[in-house]
Amino acid sequence: MSDERQPTRRPGGRTARVGAAVHQAVTELLGERGHGAFTIGDVAARAGVADTTVYRRWGSMEALLADVTLTRLNARSPMPDTGTLEGDLRTYAAGVAREITGPDGLALLRLAVALSGPGAEGTQALDTLVAERSRQLRSMFDRAHERGERAPDTETFVDLVLAPMYIRVLFGGGPLTAEYVDGLVDRLL
Amino acid sequence: MSDERQPTRRPGGRTARVGAAVHQAVTELLGERGHGAFTIGDVAARAGVADTTVYRRWGSMEALLADVTLTRLNARSPMPDTGTLEGDLRTYAAGVAREITGPDGLALLRLAVALSGPGAEGTQALDTLVAERSRQLRSMFDRAHERGERAPDTETFVDLVLAPMYIRVLFGGGPLTAEYVDGLVDRLL
Repeated sequence: MSDERQPTRRPGGRTARVGAAVHQAVTELLGERGHGAFTIGDVAARAGVADTTVYRRWGSMEALLADVTLTRLNARSPMPDTGTLEGDLRTYAAGVAREITGPDGLALLRLAVALSGPGAEGTQALDTLVAERSRQLRSMFDRAHERGERAPDTETFVDLVLAPMYIRVLFGGGPLTAEYVDGLVDRLL
Repeated sequence: MSDERQPTRRPGGRTARVGAAVHQAVTELLGERGHGAFTIGDVAARAGVADTTVYRRWGSMEALLADVTLTRLNARSPMPDTGTLEGDLRTYAAGVAREITGPDGLALLRLAVALSGPGAEGTQALDTLVAERSRQLRSMFDRAHERGERAPDTETFVDLVLAPMYIRVLFGGGPLTAEYVDGLVDRLL
């Protein structure tokens, strides 16, 4: 097993090209057929790689979906660094609001929910996704702390800012206006 | 059309029996196959009624699923009336926490999320469900108001208490301990 892992990833090399092709294939299949209606074999065929390449790198459909979700979330709402906690929070919250109300936003959120379904692999993949996102949030709060600002903990941020936005979009509770999103951040501050 | 609607519902009569049999069939099929993997024809066959009976009464699968979800939510977490707003809020929040962490809780939540997917019928059905739930919450807050207590609005209650619990369960963010749920209500009060 350890020999198989010897050829490590070179950015811009074959590993990166395979990663991009597989992510692209998953995104297309999600849009065309929806979650649960395609297999790793379908993904591999669309990406032009062997099934075993996908299995070896991602291990399961759930892990692959979590990786695609996290990559898209990061590409669309990178963690801001504006110099103040308030600036970071407002920029980040506005970015999340834009992302989850955008063309694929609801599909992305519903995919994350689908990963939480029955099955340990989906749960594990979602845990990885949430842990990575929490790590990024903590680094934002750590920077605030180093500047001498009082920063919230990640759980409070999720409860007061992210959860209301997510639920509003998932349950069709009305638009995420700038006033609404700023109000959530005000409540946190 | 109006003639067809003449035989109105008699509690305990055929209409109630059909309703119970159809709800039971939907619950069973959701458990066995999951959302999206059965048709109105399957429901009708399992309930021992004609397809047209289901279509005439509920109109669409989405409306039927919303009706089943609302009925189950109501049966499990009826609106409390303890005499104080704080008592009502704590009892209600604890009931919701119990319900969504129970055996079918996640399935119920994911069903509500599935209803928010593409398609006007699902969205409409979910709107009906959310509106009914909001109406019940408002009546709890109205009672508080009449007693001279300061009551929150429904939106603030959803944002501060329901959304964090729902997201925690949907995204696997850890157990809903009594301390956690009481903390959410404290924040609201």
